[in-house]
Amino acid sequence: MSSPPARPRAFHFERILIGERWERDVRLEVDDGGHIAAVEPGGRPEGCERVVGWTVPGVPNVHSHSFQRALAGLAEGGGPGSFWSWRDVMYAFVDRLTPDDLEAITAQLHVEMLKSGFTCVGEFHYLHHAPGGVPYEDPAEMSRRILEAARISGIGLVHMPVVYETAGFGGEPLEGGPRRFGMDLEGVARLCESLGGRAPGQGIRTGLALHSLRAVPRETFGRLAEFLPALASKGAGAAPVHIHVAEQRREVRECLERLGARPVEWLLDHAPVDRRWCLVHATHVDDHEAEAVARAGAVVGLCPTTEANLGDGLFPLGAFAVRGGRFGIGTDSHVSRSPVEELRLLDYGQRLTLRRRSVLGDVTSGDAMAGDATARESALAGAGGRLLAHAWRDGCRALAWDGGSVAIGLRADLLVLDAEHPALAGRTANRVLDSWLFSGTDNPVRHVMVGGDWVVRDGRHAREEEVRLAFARTVRRLPERL
Amino acid sequence: MSSPPARPRAFHFERILIGERWERDVRLEVDDGGHIAAVEPGGRPEGCERVVGWTVPGVPNVHSHSFQRALAGLAEGGGPGSFWSWRDVMYAFVDRLTPDDLEAITAQLHVEMLKSGFTCVGEFHYLHHAPGGVPYEDPAEMSRRILEAARISGIGLVHMPVVYETAGFGGEPLEGGPRRFGMDLEGVARLCESLGGRAPGQGIRTGLALHSLRAVPRETFGRLAEFLPALASKGAGAAPVHIHVAEQRREVRECLERLGARPVEWLLDHAPVDRRWCLVHATHVDDHEAEAVARAGAVVGLCPTTEANLGDGLFPLGAFAVRGGRFGIGTDSHVSRSPVEELRLLDYGQRLTLRRRSVLGDVTSGDAMAGDATARESALAGAGGRLLAHAWRDGCRALAWDGGSVAIGLRADLLVLDAEHPALAGRTANRVLDSWLFSGTDNPVRHVMVGGDWVVRDGRHAREEEVRLAFARTVRRLPERL
Repeated sequence: MSSPPARPRAFHFERILIGERWERDVRLEVDDGGHIAAVEPGGRPEGCERVVGWTVPGVPNVHSHSFQRALAGLAEGGGPGSFWSWRDVMYAFVDRLTPDDLEAITAQLHVEMLKSGFTCVGEFHYLHHAPGGVPYEDPAEMSRRILEAARISGIGLVHMPVVYETAGFGGEPLEGGPRRFGMDLEGVARLCESLGGRAPGQGIRTGLALHSLRAVPRETFGRLAEFLPALASKGAGAAPVHIHVAEQRREVRECLERLGARPVEWLLDHAPVDRRWCLVHATHVDDHEAEAVARAGAVVGLCPTTEANLGDGLFPLGAFAVRGGRFGIGTDSHVSRSPVEELRLLDYGQRLTLRRRSVLGDVTSGDAMAGDATARESALAGAGGRLLAHAWRDGCRALAWDGGSVAIGLRADLLVLDAEHPALAGRTANRVLDSWLFSGTDNPVRHVMVGGDWVVRDGRHAREEEVRLAFARTVRRLPERL
Repeated sequence: MSSPPARPRAFHFERILIGERWERDVRLEVDDGGHIAAVEPGGRPEGCERVVGWTVPGVPNVHSHSFQRALAGLAEGGGPGSFWSWRDVMYAFVDRLTPDDLEAITAQLHVEMLKSGFTCVGEFHYLHHAPGGVPYEDPAEMSRRILEAARISGIGLVHMPVVYETAGFGGEPLEGGPRRFGMDLEGVARLCESLGGRAPGQGIRTGLALHSLRAVPRETFGRLAEFLPALASKGAGAAPVHIHVAEQRREVRECLERLGARPVEWLLDHAPVDRRWCLVHATHVDDHEAEAVARAGAVVGLCPTTEANLGDGLFPLGAFAVRGGRFGIGTDSHVSRSPVEELRLLDYGQRLTLRRRSVLGDVTSGDAMAGDATARESALAGAGGRLLAHAWRDGCRALAWDGGSVAIGLRADLLVLDAEHPALAGRTANRVLDSWLFSGTDNPVRHVMVGGDWVVRDGRHAREEEVRLAFARTVRRLPERL
C-alpha cells in the first residue's frame, strides 16, 4: 500500500463473480487510477498474478461514526436502557477524545472492516471541534485524522462532514458533549474546500451529511437546492447527501408535534431528495412513506446490528423491496464490523417477525435481477445472493462509489473468499454466497483488494499490529466510568 | 488430549471469574477426573502453569443435531420458504449420510464449537439407522460415531438418543429420509446399554430425548414415569430428558386439533416434567404456559440462530425470565457455532420487538444473582454478563452437567479470553463480558480447557487440520442438488 507496484497490473482469477454468474480463469487488468481496464473470461494467464478462490466485489459500508468503535461493549450496563440513555453514555465518552485518539480508533476500525469484507466506508462525521466546542486551528483537523486513518488502512472513504446546529426540534442550543459537533452549511463548505485543496487520494471522496431533523433547522433544508451545486464545485462532485431519519418512535412523535408531519414525510416534502440521497435507518416509515422513498430513488441505509443494539425497531424491508426500494448496509456504532453479520441480522430480524424464510426471495423474483428462466442458475438466486446484490449495487449508489460489481470502468475493489474454508468447502457455485452469509462467524475472507492494491493478504493487514497497538494505547487512556 | 499429562495438575490464573467476581492470581488444582480440587485466590504460583487473560467457565451447548452442520448455507435457495420446506431439504440430504460422514461432520463441528467457547454439547441424536430404516449391525453404530468425534475433539458430550415413532400427530408411519430415525423407548434403552457397556470416557454421558409431540405417541409419554428410573439404572444416571416443543405455529394448531391442548400445556399435563427436563424452542407459549414451565423448574433450550433462520418466531424471554424461568442456548442446525452469536441474537431479537435495551436488565435485578447493593460492581451486571449467567447455570442444569462455574467439585471446563484482543483491550473488569458479547465477530477465545485438559491453545485445536480435511472430503462427496 505504501509503495504500490508498477501499473497497469494484471490478475488471473480462478473464479470471479461477474454480474450474476461465476466465471472461470478471468484475466483482469487494473489501470493507474485503480479502475478495471479489461475483463476477459478464459483470458491468457501470461504476466498475471494468479488469484485462487471465490472472488466477489467488496462491500460498501454506507454509515459509520468511527469514534464509536471504542464504545462497543461499554454501554451495556445496568437498567432497562434505551436509545436515549445510550446517547448520554456516548456524549460523556465523546468529551474526552483527542485527534490522536480519533485517528487510532478509526485506523483500527478500518482494518477490521477490510478484513471482514468492507472495501469502502461512508463516514458520517460530526466530531468537528475540541471539547467545549472550541474550533481547532485547522477546521478540518478531525476530518484530516479520518483521512489519515483511511490512508494507513487503504480503505476507500467517502467523508461526509455533518451539519449539526441544534439539540432538538425546538432549536435548543448544543450543550455538553454535542458542543463539539456544531457546524452549519458554510462550515461544511469551508471544511470540504480545505480538504479538497490538499488533494485527497483517489480512494477518498467527500459528501454532505445532515445530522437529523432535530439537529438541522427548517431554514437549512430550504437552502439545500441552492447549496448542493455550490458544494459540488468545491470538489465534492456528485456528492451523496446522507441524513439520519425516523430511527426512534420518540423522534416520530416530536416531529409530528413540531413539524406537523412524520419525519420521512416531512423530509420528502421539504428537501430535494433524489437518487443521491441516503436515508439512514428510516426505521419508522409507513407504507406511503416507503413507497415515496422508493419512487424518489433514494437509498435506505440500514444498520441492523446498531438498530438492534439500541432497540430501535425493524424497518419494513419486505414492503419496501417489493416496491423496488433500494437499501445498503452500514455498521454505524460498530458493535459489528462485518457485512456478514449486518446482512444476516437484517434477514433474521425480518424472518423472525414475518415468520417465514427468505424474505427477499419472493419480492425480488420478478425483477430484473433474477426474473427470467435462468434465475435458479444465478449465483444471486439464494437468500445470501439477494442480500449481497442490494448491498453491492444500492450501497455504491448511496456513496456515489463506482464499484459494487466487476466491470470495465469500475474500481477494482475485490474480496477473495477461501474455497477451502470450512464454511465454503465443497460448495457448488450457486451456494457459495449463501454459505458465506449463513454459516458461522469464522471469517472466510482471505485477500482484499482496494483500487487494485492488496490491503489484506492471507487474512492479515500489513499494518495491523502497529494499528492494534496504537488503538490499545488509546482505549487504555479513555475513562470507563460510564 | 490423546496423551494427557500427569495428574493432578495445577494452574495459576491471572484473572478468573468466580461467582460474580473477577479474582486475581488464582491457584486452581484439577483432579484425575477433570474436576476442580482446589481454588485459592492469591495462591502460590509454585508448580503451576501460569495462564494469562480473562478466564471464564466454558459455555454448555444444550441442543445439537450434528449432521446438520454440513447443511449450513445449502437451504437458502429460491422461493419464500418455511420451516417445512427447509425440513424437506434436510430429509433429502440426510438420506445420503454414511457413518464415516457423520463422524467427519461431527468432529469438525466440535472443533468449531470449542474454538468459539462451547465446552460441552447435548446431542439430540435421531439419525439411528441406515438409509431406508435398515438397522446397522450394531444398533449404536451412529451413536458411536458421535462419541468418537467427541473423543477426537475433546469436547464434553451428553449423548441423547431420540425416541422417534411417527410422522405426525395422527400416528402416520415414517417414510423417506425419516425412516432412518425410527426408534422407541426400548430401542433407546438397548442403545444406552450398549454404549454404557463399552464405558464411554468421563467426559461423555447419556440422556433421553423425545423428538416431539408429533413423533412420539401419547402412550409413550404415559410410560415415562416408569421408564426413566429404569433408564437411569442402565448407566444414564440422573439423565436429562429433552424434547422439541412448540417451535412452529402449525404445530400448535395441529396439537390443539388432535390433542385438544397447546403443546407445552399438553406436555406438562401428560409427562413428568421436572428440573431434569429441557423444553427445546418452546417458541409459542402463552403466559400461563411460561409460568408453568418456570414453576416446574424445567429449562427452555433456546436456539436463536436456528429459530431465526427458520422463521420460527420469538420466545417471550422477558415474561419468562421475570417469573424465574431458566434458559440455556443451543446451536441446533449449526448455522452458527458460537455462543456469542446465539446470545447476542437472543438479546437483539428481544430488543427489536420490545424496543428497549438490556431486556434481562430489569427482570433479574431483583433476584439473587444481582439483587444487592454490590450489583453494580458485579461482573455479571451488564447485559452480556446476565445472558452468560443464564447460559452457564441453566445450560448445565439442562444437561445435568457439573460445570458452569469455577468451584471445587465442578469440572475444569474453562475459556481464556485474550485481554489484548481488540474487542477487550483496555476494558475494565466490569465490562469484559459485555465487550465479549457485544463487540464484533472476531473471536477473542484464546485457550480452551475441558476437564482439565487444554484442547485449544492460541486459537488452534491440535487436530484441526486433520479434522478439516476429513470434513472437506465428506462434504465434497455429498450431493448438492437441493
